[in-house]
This record gives sequence, C-alpha cells and structure tokens, in this order.
Amino acid sequence: MYVRRVSELSAQGAKVVLRGAIDRATAMGVPQCVAVVDTGGNLLVFERMDGAKLHSQFSAIQKAFTAISAKAPTGQLPTELAFGIALATNNRFATIAGGLPIELEGEIVGAIGVGSGNDEEDIEVAQAGIEALQNAIAHHA
Amino acid sequence: MYVRRVSELSAQGAKVVLRGAIDRATAMGVPQCVAVVDTGGNLLVFERMDGAKLHSQFSAIQKAFTAISAKAPTGQLPTELAFGIALATNNRFATIAGGLPIELEGEIVGAIGVGSGNDEEDIEVAQAGIEALQNAIAHHA
Amino acid sequence: MYVRRVSELSAQGAKVVLRGAIDRATAMGVPQCVAVVDTGGNLLVFERMDGAKLHSQFSAIQKAFTAISAKAPTGQLPTELAFGIALATNNRFATIAGGLPIELEGEIVGAIGVGSGNDEEDIEVAQAGIEALQNAIAHHA
Amino acid sequence: MYVRRVSELSAQGAKVVLRGAIDRATAMGVPQCVAVVDTGGNLLVFERMDGAKLHSQFSAIQKAFTAISAKAPTGQLPTELAFGIALATNNRFATIAGGLPIELEGEIVGAIGVGSGNDEEDIEVAQAGIEALQNAIAHHA
Repeated sequence: MYVRRVSELSAQGAKVVLRGAIDRATAMGVPQCVAVVDTGGNLLVFERMDGAKLHSQFSAIQKAFTAISAKAPTGQLPTELAFGIALATNNRFATIAGGLPIELEGEIVGAIGVGSGNDEEDIEVAQAGIEALQNAIAHHA
Repeated sequence: MYVRRVSELSAQGAKVVLRGAIDRATAMGVPQCVAVVDTGGNLLVFERMDGAKLHSQFSAIQKAFTAISAKAPTGQLPTELAFGIALATNNRFATIAGGLPIELEGEIVGAIGVGSGNDEEDIEVAQAGIEALQNAIAHHA
Repeated sequence: MYVRRVSELSAQGAKVVLRGAIDRATAMGVPQCVAVVDTGGNLLVFERMDGAKLHSQFSAIQKAFTAISAKAPTGQLPTELAFGIALATNNRFATIAGGLPIELEGEIVGAIGVGSGNDEEDIEVAQAGIEALQNAIAHHA
Repeated sequence: MYVRRVSELSAQGAKVVLRGAIDRATAMGVPQCVAVVDTGGNLLVFERMDGAKLHSQFSAIQKAFTAISAKAPTGQLPTELAFGIALATNNRFATIAGGLPIELEGEIVGAIGVGSGNDEEDIEVAQAGIEALQNAIAHHA
C-alpha cells in the first residue's frame, strides 16, 4: 500500500505522559528533564524541573528520539556497538538508559526520554509517564 | 484525544513518487537529486542521477523536510523572512524552490524535494513525482 | 560584589507562561510551538501543538534564547546586522520576531519564544504567556 | 513559587577566581587555559596563558559548563557512562577532570574549568581559583 494509517501521539497525550513522569520524579525527590516525542522523533513537550542538570535538557530529548527511532528502550546495546551507532549517526543515537517507546494497544505512538537521575531513576520516571497515559485511556474507555 | 489517526506515506508509496520524478527528469534530460520524506520529515527514499550536483544531495533532503514541516511548497516566503527562519532553525529550513508537500485526498502524507536543476525544473520534477502517486492510487481504486 | 542575588523563573512559573501562551494560541486557532527559558538561556518547558510546523520546534527555542540573551524582543534589529550576529554566533541569535523577555517588577527572569504563526500571531501568543504569569502573581499577592 | 531568588557569580567574582587560578598555574610553571561560567553555564571570564595548548581553550570551557551543569567535579563518572552522556548531549559534557563547581556558603554560584596540564595540575589550579574567591569574601566580611 502507498499510504499507511498509523496512530500518532497528540500534544494532549504527550502532556499526560509528561505529567505522570514529573509527578513520579517529584515524589521521588529527584529533579529530572523529561521530553516526549512523536513517531517522527519530533519534540512534543519538555520540562526541566528546578535543580535538574543543564546538560540533561539535551540528553532527555536524544533519549526520546532514540527510543522511537529504534522502537526499543535506550541503553541496551553492547557499549562498543552503541557508541559506533552514535558516531555513525552524528549523535542521533543515545547510548544510555532513560528512553522508552510509548506503546498503546500494541502500537508504538511516540517515546519518552528522561535524564538527570541515575539509570534506575530515569527509567522509573519514564515508565510512570507511560503508565499515566495508559491509565488515562483506560479511564476514558 | 490522546492519539490521532493519521495517514503516512509508505516506502512503497515513496518509491512511486521517486520513480515518477526520475522519469520526468530523464525525459527532460536534467540530472536531479530527489528525496522523499514522511510526515515526520524522515527520509524514505533518495536517488542522485548520474551527473547531478553533489551538493544537491543535501538540498534535496532539506527541501523535502521543509515542505513537510511547513506543509507548503518551499521558496515562497520573502527572502529576509526565509533567511531568518533558516538561521533561527540552525539550517533546518530550505529557502529555495523545489520542495512540495505530497497531498492525497486532502491529507498531507509526506513531501518531495528536488535539486540540481533550476527552480522551474526542480518544481516540475517534484510535481511529476506527486502526480505519479496520485495516478497510481487512482488506477488502484 | 562577587555574587549577585537575582530572580530566576522557576519550572512552575514557566508552566504558567506556557499555559497562557497555549491557551491564547488555541483561542486564535493557530497551532504554535512555545518555549520558555531561564536567565541562562536553558530550556525550562516546551510544547508543540498538533499541526504546528516541525522546524518551529527549533526556532521557538532559539527565539527564547535570543530574547533572554539580548534582554529585548527578537526581530527588531536591521536585517543585515541581525544576520551578521546570527552568523557570528554560529546561529545562537534569532533574527525573527516571536521572542520576548519575561519581566516581573522590573527584573527580567526568563524569556518566551513562539513560532509557527506569522510575526503578529507569534508575538501575541508570547505576550499572552507573560501576562498569564503576571496575573497569577497579582492574584497570589 | 513562580520565581526563585538565587545567587549568581558576578564578573567581579569570576575575575577573582581567574586570578587565583592563574597565579597558582604561574607558581607551578604550568601554562593553563582557565574558564569561569555562571550558573547558566555561560562564559564570564577566560584566559589562555602563553604556551597553553590551543585545544584547551575549548575543553576548559566545556569542563566549566559540565561542572555547573552536573553541580559536581568533572571526570568522576565511569568512563562508559561519561562517554555515553557526552554522545547523548552532542558534546555538551566533559568526561575529563579539571572542572569544579564554585560553592559559597552552601550555594553553587558558578564553575571553573582548567585545561592544558595533567589531571592533578588542572584540578589544583581550579581549586586555587575557588579558594581565592572564598578568601576574598572572608576578608570582606
């Protein structure tokens, strides 16, 4: 087929993800940068909490881009391969954890990237963002 | 709504666009670079004909990205404004002609960018690519 | 003095600005990209509304950076000078309108950048964001 | 709160830090590049001593940016993680030693980055810069 019908995260959906992530980071007491992108890897929403690292404003976006690009969590490839991809793509591939694809009913509709905490903290916050959207949709159904 | 249903140009559709553009350029005797992107601005297919300018491999992609980004043909803004946008986006905006959004039944599903000829040649080739897809779909219906 | 006491827009304040801007853009029916930065020019919050131009995700941030950098609205210098500054700063200076510093009680605490509409639309949305914050502070006092 | 009151290193303060660092480097006989940034990571003062390495003009600034961004000395993370962050931030994160945050009375007000010597020399010079400011403030009190 020449054209596919696909599901695309909206700005409204992205804000639900962002809110869920920020709420979890707040509860954890860990300031974070959170970015949400659509299926094309373009930024929908972003927030840097007070006290989050400055450089994480860039890595959060890069992690989200990588998660949608690879349709997989970031930070899971062997290091040498991951670095090689980062170099080969002129830094359009994050090698570190904190990016997760956002899946709804078996379809990936966008991705979230979180940075400023450690790996476990970043992943927990990203996962909380995704769950917030899944919960919001379940309650609407 | 949290998720939107959208139409997205497939690789197969992009190849029909590319074929139509290359066929026209061949008939015109003007070697061209042709790029086709999806709605997120990511490259689907590309071809540089023998003899096409090397730098046009970059401008063709940039024109396609700009056409989908702005959902409008490239090269139509007043020069000062267009240059200003190019600078403000760190060169993610082509100011010159040759990029066209690909519209099907009222929905924009991707874009084509053509470079290496003059403005008229580039636009004619881009338009031929789009028409090839529209014709293919009409014949399938 | 070796150290100055300054006022800095918080993430909470930035969200009030963003909300005011998005509300105005929604009322105008013009999809926009909106970015808010702190006094150091680092991104605090961002939103791209459904339908806003992809390249404006970059120019909105650049406009906000430029407004805080110059402590003045963007797009007001003579074109040649503005382009010269953009080139001299490796594109860390937006030459086009849509960026405004955020002033509270005579002190600039951050900036907002808006892109995807025309100049007047971008400026109106940016101004609405600033007014939302000023109103919120007035009501808290 | 919408606005936070924060302490920000002034140009005068930065010059005290720079002077202290350069004096130490001179006493050590090691030519250095020294950069001092504010809390937003923007350059306040810089000096490249005669004979210091040319590339260190860039790494000294990057180290200072990284130290304020992470609010921690540079060069302390495991190599793989540090390299991963550098790649994910498009080289806005220095992985090597020589950057230190400048802390005054429990508040971080800026950062210093030093490059051209070895790790120990860079750190010693950076520390001397910070101590010069702390001493100047103690004498003023």
